[in-house]
Parts: sequence; structure tokens; C-alpha cells
Amino acid sequence: MKFNIALLAGDGIGPEVIDQAVKVSDAVAKKFGHEITWKPALTGAAAIDAVGEPYPDETHEICASSDAVLFGAIGHPKFDNDPSAPVRPEQGLLKMRKKLGLFANVRPTFVFPSLLDKSPLKKERIEGTDLVFFRELTSGVYFGEKGRKDDGNTAYDTNVYTKEEVTRLARKGFEAAMQRSKKLCCVDKANVMETSRLWRETVQGMEKEYPEVEVSYEFVDAVAMRLVQWPKDYDVLITENLFGDVLTDEASVISGSMGLMPSASLGTSVSLFEPIHGSYPQAAGKNIANPMATVLSAAMMFENFGLTEEGKVIREAVNKALAEGVVTEDLAEGGKAYGTKEVGDWLAANI
Amino acid sequence: MKFNIALLAGDGIGPEVIDQAVKVSDAVAKKFGHEITWKPALTGAAAIDAVGEPYPDETHEICASSDAVLFGAIGHPKFDNDPSAPVRPEQGLLKMRKKLGLFANVRPTFVFPSLLDKSPLKKERIEGTDLVFFRELTSGVYFGEKGRKDDGNTAYDTNVYTKEEVTRLARKGFEAAMQRSKKLCCVDKANVMETSRLWRETVQGMEKEYPEVEVSYEFVDAVAMRLVQWPKDYDVLITENLFGDVLTDEASVISGSMGLMPSASLGTSVSLFEPIHGSYPQAAGKNIANPMATVLSAAMMFENFGLTEEGKVIREAVNKALAEGVVTEDLAEGGKAYGTKEVGDWLAANI
Ligand SMILES: CC(C)[C@H](C(=O)O)[C@@H](O)C(=O)O
Ligand SMILES: CC(C)[C@H](C(=O)O)[C@@H](O)C(=O)O
Repeated sequence: MKFNIALLAGDGIGPEVIDQAVKVSDAVAKKFGHEITWKPALTGAAAIDAVGEPYPDETHEICASSDAVLFGAIGHPKFDNDPSAPVRPEQGLLKMRKKLGLFANVRPTFVFPSLLDKSPLKKERIEGTDLVFFRELTSGVYFGEKGRKDDGNTAYDTNVYTKEEVTRLARKGFEAAMQRSKKLCCVDKANVMETSRLWRETVQGMEKEYPEVEVSYEFVDAVAMRLVQWPKDYDVLITENLFGDVLTDEASVISGSMGLMPSASLGTSVSLFEPIHGSYPQAAGKNIANPMATVLSAAMMFENFGLTEEGKVIREAVNKALAEGVVTEDLAEGGKAYGTKEVGDWLAANI
Repeated sequence: MKFNIALLAGDGIGPEVIDQAVKVSDAVAKKFGHEITWKPALTGAAAIDAVGEPYPDETHEICASSDAVLFGAIGHPKFDNDPSAPVRPEQGLLKMRKKLGLFANVRPTFVFPSLLDKSPLKKERIEGTDLVFFRELTSGVYFGEKGRKDDGNTAYDTNVYTKEEVTRLARKGFEAAMQRSKKLCCVDKANVMETSRLWRETVQGMEKEYPEVEVSYEFVDAVAMRLVQWPKDYDVLITENLFGDVLTDEASVISGSMGLMPSASLGTSVSLFEPIHGSYPQAAGKNIANPMATVLSAAMMFENFGLTEEGKVIREAVNKALAEGVVTEDLAEGGKAYGTKEVGDWLAANI
């Protein structure tokens, strides 16, 4: 097959980790006879610096006309303490999500047996954890009307959801549940919020289409507790944008393998793949960043194209690297630490 | 001193744990020469059953004219799976908060050395944890306009905050920080929400009034992560209603002593004290519920009256009970389990 992949490296360690994912993807393409054309484009602080805009139209054209987007990380400390600055990298992110219609953010949380000790949680609590969040990404309070009244002394945000938006996201969750353990948890705050009541009734209405899936409904506060207590109780979770923001980040620390967690944002035509970690400006340019989350995001990309085998060889290479200690300093535990580039080379060579 | 205390036992195990707190409070009153008049009143499912209303006017009159409210727990399974039922216990809770003006929910999270093993987190991560959340409780999305449009197919919720509401809550946080380690963390989502930007700028504007307090600003998603990773990094946290709902519940599992955690909801005239745990209908009437969280809530009540010594003797009695194994079955670890009433008796005798 032939693919055009938009390559949005972004800020901080983004470019370095993206380089390794490209290397590994090229090795996969070679092995399976695919052809990938990479289309680099600007985003984040890098784009603000270059053209004054975190998600320039030109970048959007490239993404919209590609088969997928591989994304590094964005964010730069110079924007950090000023959330009201007129132009910020996050705005580019939100604009990109909206314009590309990336409505379902998929965040798996799973454990690597060799890394269990890195978790803040006790081993027996997390061993075997394998859950996946489907977070709605293009609606909710992120995109509702917001503003000020009373000379700026009153602020408001509006959370809005349509039945269609809920259905679309929930369907992804139900489909994933059918491929997995047929367990789905809808996370809401239906005892307080009207949007949550719409979520709940919409999902309840879909249950009959998936009679094999066992659906539970839990309040967001209860899930925030139980995720830490009994992460193994969960399998597929679906939720709205803001709850998903908080809970997926919370879930990411459970496994102890946060630096290895990939993600996908599924769109109506094009989808995006990115590591869940940030741009770590402190580590930028030092050849020390762990590229595995980005490499595993490339695996999700292949799987999303229906290329399961291609995804599998990447996952196997990563597992082998972990088993053989071919890891960056964050995982080296006093052993030899490889550079970002060296880990990438090793993974590509082991495809 | 003389006090009138409204006594809202509520549902499930509420009445049993409240009984023990009354017993212990009476012992404290006796020891220090105070006089407490208890004013029982209906709330929750119990009130719905009796008078069709979860927070009847009569109950409100009693609360509003008392010096404090001691609250058990509310909630009954018959209301659980129907968040759109016309009358629900939670509505009583929200009405009570609003009508009594309970604007600051105070939720300490601390560890009992003898219970560290109960935590899902590793001991070295939590040892020494001592943080306290100030959650805004009478505004935000809980009380903003909400409803449906498009024949019910679109739902919305509005999150609204005024500068005054933020200031009032933040002041409680700053004051607590001054009594503690002079560290305050404002939790918001100022990169996305206008209400959060109001929170942040309001708190920033108050910094000069408390020059000794070191204030940090963190996004809610980052805090959801870091609370599990490094709970010891936090001291006083302030936040809005919905974020507080999620984060205080998440924080409650950290210490492993969830069944022992008290809380206070401070109002403009009267304040309320309650355990953070729920009504556990399964345990109701069995004399097995742990009364310590409610007893410690009574300690917070005395402290809130400025009666520090009175609070201290209660805390000491609880610590002694834990050390000597005078505990209910949830903490018995195969040793002897005492009944709810017996733990209450023991604590009262040890005041
Ligand atoms: C940067 C921020 C706007 C963004 C969000 O809240 O969605 C981030 O936290 C994320 O989860 O991708
Ligand atoms: C029952 C519910 C409405 C309530 C809330 O969300 O405030 C509860 O979760 C709490 O934290 O006291």
C-alpha cells in the first residue's frame, strides 16, 4: 500500500522522537512492501515562532490531504505561565482537533511486566491492567460558548453535547468492547449535569444494538477513585472531553509506563497518532528522550489502517528492546542507557 | 459554651455512625464543661420517604438556626440507576449547600502510620502525606443554567463563577496555608476555560495580601496525575466545584484510610461536618460500619468553634483506638473486630 503521512514533530523532544518513529515505520514499510511519503509540517510553538500561528492553514492542508498524521509533542515554557496570552500552542491543538474532526481520542493503558516496579501503585493492584479510554475530543466545554459579564467579574463556560456527538463516540467504544472483553463503562456526572444525562440516555439507547456488551454507568468522581484502587476492574471506558482529559491523565500513571503510552485520535476522514507525553523542553536536543511511546503510536497507526501484522512487529520489537535493556536513561535503572537515536536504530533493525 | 447542633443522620449507615459521634461529642462536652443540644432532622432518602422531599424546609430551619450541622450520609440504591428521577437524595444535598451557603468544602487527606499498608499506593510514596483541598461548593456547573434544545437532542450545562465567589473560597485556602506550610496550589484549566482564567487572575491578585505564601498554578489534568505520583508534593489546594468533586475523591484513596476521612463544609453563618464516605446500604443496621470518620468530623466541628483542645482529645482517642486495635472489621486484619457501637463506647470512655 501507499501512504502519505503528515509529520508534525512540534516542540521540545518532539522532533527527536518523531525521527525514530519514522525510522521504524520505514523499516516496517520496507518489510511489508508499503510505500510511505512523509509530509513534514509546522505546529506548536515552532509554528508560532515561524509564522505566528500554532496550526497554520498550510499545515492543515497537509494533514487533511494525508492518510494519517503522526504527531510529536507541543508546548514551550515561554507560554506556560500565561494562559491568557493571545496565541498559545494549545489553541493550535484545539483548532487542529476541530478542523480535522478528531472526535475520538483513544488512550490505552496497559502494563509492561518488566516495568511494574515503576508504578506508584502496588504491583498486585496493577498486574494485568489493560484498559482503554475513548475520550470525546471535539466538543464539550472546550468548544462551547465562553466569556465574561459584569465588567469581567463574572466568567462562564458552556458545555454542550448533541446526541449525534455522543452516539459517534460511544459507537467507537462499543466496537472496541466487542473486540475485547465486551465490557463498557460510561463515565458521566448524570446526578448533576444535563449533558451527562444526555450521554447516559444515548448510551442506554444503544445497548440493544450490542446485546453482548455489558454496560455500566459510573460517576466521574467514583471512577477517579476506583481507577487508582482497582484499575483491573476496567476495560473500555467512554467519556466526554473534560472528564476524559482528567481521567486519561490520571490513568496514565497507573502502569508506571507513562513514557511508553501511545494514543490515537480518530477522525471522520484522517486520524492522528501521538505519544501521550509532553514536549519536555529540558530534555530537548540531548538525545535522551524515550522514543518508544511515539514508536508505539506508529504501531497504532498501522493497526488503524487494518495492518495488524505491521503493528505487531513494532510491538514485538519494543518488547524485545525492553527485555534486552535497550532503553533510554528513564528506564535504565543504573544499567547502560542508550540514546534516543540508538534505541530508534535498534528498533528499526529489529523489525 | 452552649451549642445547638443540627443532627442529620441520613440514610444507610448514617444513623449508626452519627450515634457514635454524638456519644463522643457528649463526652468531650462533659469533660470541658460545654453543653450540646442535639436537634435531629430528616434528610436524604429517609426524608423523601417521610415527607417527599430530600431537604425539607423544616430541616433547613433547624440547620439554619443551629451553631453547626453534623451530617451522616445520604443515598439509597433505589435511586441509583435513575439520575433523571424527579426527586433524588442528591438534590437535597445541593439544595442544602446552596441554602446554607456552604461555600467551602474542606477535605484533608492524611495518613495513619498504622494503616499505610491499606493504600493502593506504595508506602514510600505516601508516607507523610498531609494535604487539604478547599473545594468551592455552591457555584460552578452544579448551579449554572442547564437544559435541552433541539427536541431534547442537545444538552447544555453552564459553569459560572464570579470574582467574589473565587475570592471567598481562595481566602480560606490562603488562611489555611498561613497556618500550615505556606504553600498553596490553585487547580484550574486556564488553558481552556474562561472560568479558570477568572480563578487564576483572582488568585494572582490576592498573592500580594499573603506575601509569605508560595502559590503555584496547575492544570487539573496534571494534578490528577501528580496526586497519585507524588501526593507529598501538595499541601493546600484550592479549586472549583466540579474539579474538586473529582480530585477530592481521587485523593481520598491515596492514604488508604478512606473510611477515616472527615470533612467540613464552611458556610457564611453555619458550617457542616460529615464523613466523606457514603451511606453503604449493604452495611446498614449491622453494627459493622466504621464510625471514626464521623467522630473525626466532630473533631473538626470543635476545632471550627475554636476549641482546639476538644478536637485534639478526639484525635488522640482515635489514634489510641487504632494503636490498640479497637477497630471495626474493615480495619481488623484478621484480629478481633469491634462493633460500631463498641468502638463509639470505647472512644467516649477514652476522652
Ligand atoms: C493542552 C490541552 C489543551 C489538552 C487538553 O486539555 O485537551 C491536553 O491536556 C490534552 O489532553 O491533550
Ligand atoms: C452526590 C453528588 C451530587 C455530590 C457532588 O457531586 O458534589 C458528591 O459526589 C459529593 O462530592 O458530595
